[in-house]
Amino acid sequence: MTDKAGSFNFDQQAMRQLGYRVVDLIVDHQTGMRSKPVARRRERAVYDRRFAAPPPRTATDPQAVLSEVAEHVLTGIAHTDHPRFYGYVPGPGNYVSVLGDALAAGFNVFAGHSLVGSSAAAIESITLGWLRDLMGMPSTAGGIFLSGGSMAGLSALHVARTRALGAGVTHDPTLAVYGTTEAHSSLAKALRTLGFGNDQLRLVPIDDSLRMNVQALAEMVRSDRINGLRPLAVIATAGTTSTGTVDPLLDIRRLCDDENLWMHVDGAYGGAARIGTCAKTLLDGLGMADSLVLDPHKWLFQPYEIGCLLVRDARSLKAAFAVEAEYLREAAASASSAADGLAGAINFYDYGPQLTRSFRALTLWMFLKTFGLDHVEQAIDRGIKLAEAAEAHISASSEWQIVTPAQIGILTFRSTIASRRRPQVIKRAVQAGLDEGYALITTTEVRGETVFRLCPIHPDAQFDEVATALNKLAVALGENDENQGNLPTEP
Amino acid sequence: MTDKAGSFNFDQQAMRQLGYRVVDLIVDHQTGMRSKPVARRRERAVYDRRFAAPPPRTATDPQAVLSEVAEHVLTGIAHTDHPRFYGYVPGPGNYVSVLGDALAAGFNVFAGHSLVGSSAAAIESITLGWLRDLMGMPSTAGGIFLSGGSMAGLSALHVARTRALGAGVTHDPTLAVYGTTEAHSSLAKALRTLGFGNDQLRLVPIDDSLRMNVQALAEMVRSDRINGLRPLAVIATAGTTSTGTVDPLLDIRRLCDDENLWMHVDGAYGGAARIGTCAKTLLDGLGMADSLVLDPHKWLFQPYEIGCLLVRDARSLKAAFAVEAEYLREAAASASSAADGLAGAINFYDYGPQLTRSFRALTLWMFLKTFGLDHVEQAIDRGIKLAEAAEAHISASSEWQIVTPAQIGILTFRSTIASRRRPQVIKRAVQAGLDEGYALITTTEVRGETVFRLCPIHPDAQFDEVATALNKLAVALGENDENQGNLPTEP
Repeated sequence: MTDKAGSFNFDQQAMRQLGYRVVDLIVDHQTGMRSKPVARRRERAVYDRRFAAPPPRTATDPQAVLSEVAEHVLTGIAHTDHPRFYGYVPGPGNYVSVLGDALAAGFNVFAGHSLVGSSAAAIESITLGWLRDLMGMPSTAGGIFLSGGSMAGLSALHVARTRALGAGVTHDPTLAVYGTTEAHSSLAKALRTLGFGNDQLRLVPIDDSLRMNVQALAEMVRSDRINGLRPLAVIATAGTTSTGTVDPLLDIRRLCDDENLWMHVDGAYGGAARIGTCAKTLLDGLGMADSLVLDPHKWLFQPYEIGCLLVRDARSLKAAFAVEAEYLREAAASASSAADGLAGAINFYDYGPQLTRSFRALTLWMFLKTFGLDHVEQAIDRGIKLAEAAEAHISASSEWQIVTPAQIGILTFRSTIASRRRPQVIKRAVQAGLDEGYALITTTEVRGETVFRLCPIHPDAQFDEVATALNKLAVALGENDENQGNLPTEP
Repeated sequence: MTDKAGSFNFDQQAMRQLGYRVVDLIVDHQTGMRSKPVARRRERAVYDRRFAAPPPRTATDPQAVLSEVAEHVLTGIAHTDHPRFYGYVPGPGNYVSVLGDALAAGFNVFAGHSLVGSSAAAIESITLGWLRDLMGMPSTAGGIFLSGGSMAGLSALHVARTRALGAGVTHDPTLAVYGTTEAHSSLAKALRTLGFGNDQLRLVPIDDSLRMNVQALAEMVRSDRINGLRPLAVIATAGTTSTGTVDPLLDIRRLCDDENLWMHVDGAYGGAARIGTCAKTLLDGLGMADSLVLDPHKWLFQPYEIGCLLVRDARSLKAAFAVEAEYLREAAASASSAADGLAGAINFYDYGPQLTRSFRALTLWMFLKTFGLDHVEQAIDRGIKLAEAAEAHISASSEWQIVTPAQIGILTFRSTIASRRRPQVIKRAVQAGLDEGYALITTTEVRGETVFRLCPIHPDAQFDEVATALNKLAVALGENDENQGNLPTEP
């Protein structure tokens, strides 16, 4: 006789029905998305009216909970996976990887160490090896899948500092890290979290193309040394979030060699473009990084929460993160110390900030197995070319001016009419787009100017829809323009 | 005419079939688990032989990929969700939350800011509010869901330091953080990552019950101040991973008030027990923490990758993590500044280390809605009582001795026979258990001694199976014991 007092299991047939319904919801969403608005947003008060109550004491029919989720929760989001989501970085995801995520959760696979998750550790290592080779990194390199680019960047900079100071040595306030204003904001946040002061992030001037000025960097490093600072690392970006710009990687590598600096490359956005053919030359030097971040949940079409850190010397990754714990004895005993940074029994809790980890690689592994690399290459090149086509379209129009050209799938532009360049006019036009829901185009700032930004890299994005979205944006700007007498004065 | 060159969509009917198969795999796993071995482990070489090849160039039938996953990947793991997994902390998960995870991935919900994910931000806030109230924290408190306890603890200590130093101020090597040897290893790792030196973690003596000695702590803090250190924070543990011990929370709170120290409570393991009735008194003072970590993927029965950080003053959480980025302007403009730390439009990227975040709260919200709080309370109390029943069973046996009593679901014990206490004999017995696969019992170290540890909190765990597992362990120890002449000499 089995005591079932606390069990959360229920009837197998009911489980199947619920599961099939979830599958149907996802399939309908993914295949019918084009006919939905790209964005829906509601005020918090709307949700509070419906949902703000203490958690229920008693059970609710799971079918009813599912209905609430389908009707009232999943309807209040922007669809970053919509083919007309051109804002930020689209999150198209893909169905096969959703199945992988469901399996990882459904079997609750623990991918922290190779004792409990031997197959998971193996598949994670093999998948990391695929990315390592595709990025042109050497076999000494190892890595880990993390929650995303932010944690991967933080971890990389922790490795750089640990290599310089030793493990468990207190932070040195004279260390200096170099990056440009165009580097991703998560890196400044990561440095703060690591204990760096704001003034330990040294801002390197950029050239006319918004790329890091390596000559200026070299001078800063030398003068910082003279002034008692301890140059540690350079953050190069392979595809900035704002404009898709790639820093001069080979020049930075040379300087890092000369000055014994750690070269960190943030390829969260653009790194994966090395898998395609269009941006290979632009990304020369990517594989020479000491640490490299990729975001498979961006341009490798994975659902969110998979970032990738690759470190040229896997041992330095382990040295930065390994700690001893008495309750992990059994796992530690069999750990790998192979020359190939991804060979043998790897306990991934020793390679990153998390102890408990889910099986993140499963989604990417299933995706690459199912679709094959040729297809991925084609999808990446297609996104790059679509941005180039949009650039040509914008250049040919008297309505628009290009601000920064299409670079690895991102371009920025402005209206040709001066009054339509006021930040508040632009903001209202974006809001009008959000409200209508046909497409989402957001803004960024280039050299102090608020400009429109287009990132049409969803694999189902279509040129004619991009053109339509641009027309709608022009109309919204014009309507704003006419009403501008009513706008409060800009500061 | 639509260009489908790079699309990863495929036939809707095929999608449904694949999805239903995944559902069936998960349902069969979750309902048939008891008849499976609790653990399967294979050497890395086995997986290399099968899977180590470059990623395929061309497509593979997704049904074939799924077969590979089902037959060769998901068969090489220990099932932390198995009712006879008594090691580490079980990860039972639950089916409703798996559906939530699948929906979050399938709709690829971006829960980073309230502009793109207004419903997600609202549900996250509401769910955090549920936990805040259940833990007895005030309404000024806010929080965030993170990848797990490791990141939540790291984030908490970052908040404590930022409150002391100011945002973006370089780390102060005289800061001191206090904890015991029994605190979770992730906290030492977190401090290292934050830039603390090993000697900035001050180890407070423990009493006979392995609890923090608050008198000794008070003396350390005073003498450290005299010696020029700057006491910052105390790490109290509500349910240590090793033995389930709870530090004296009320005494620590009083000292933190007197000495102006940040009180961080690591309730990753035991905090949720406050929801039940058995451990409420033991956990008095939990809600008075300045920061509190819970792991819903432990004792709130969620699949992995959901940790929770609650901070008494939500503003200090935001002060530590908010950064400006030009491409996030639209979202930042509408951010909440309400007195209730969880009210209004919250951009969760301002409250933690990640920018891109998936919809972590969905699983927990659906779970609590579906099963109701009474059921959760019952499940927690049941785990606590089962450990107490196991303690009574062990105490009554001449074979075993209790080392630490059942505390919030964890107990440790040893063999009564001296030769069976040798670490290598114990290790072989654990390995024999792993190989047989009936149940998993692991070890820990208490006061320098390697002992067995039992954590039978899976809601489907059964007393008679625990008893059988203990019998099997005794047999394995006996067999090892007889062979001990062949063992290499212990150092």
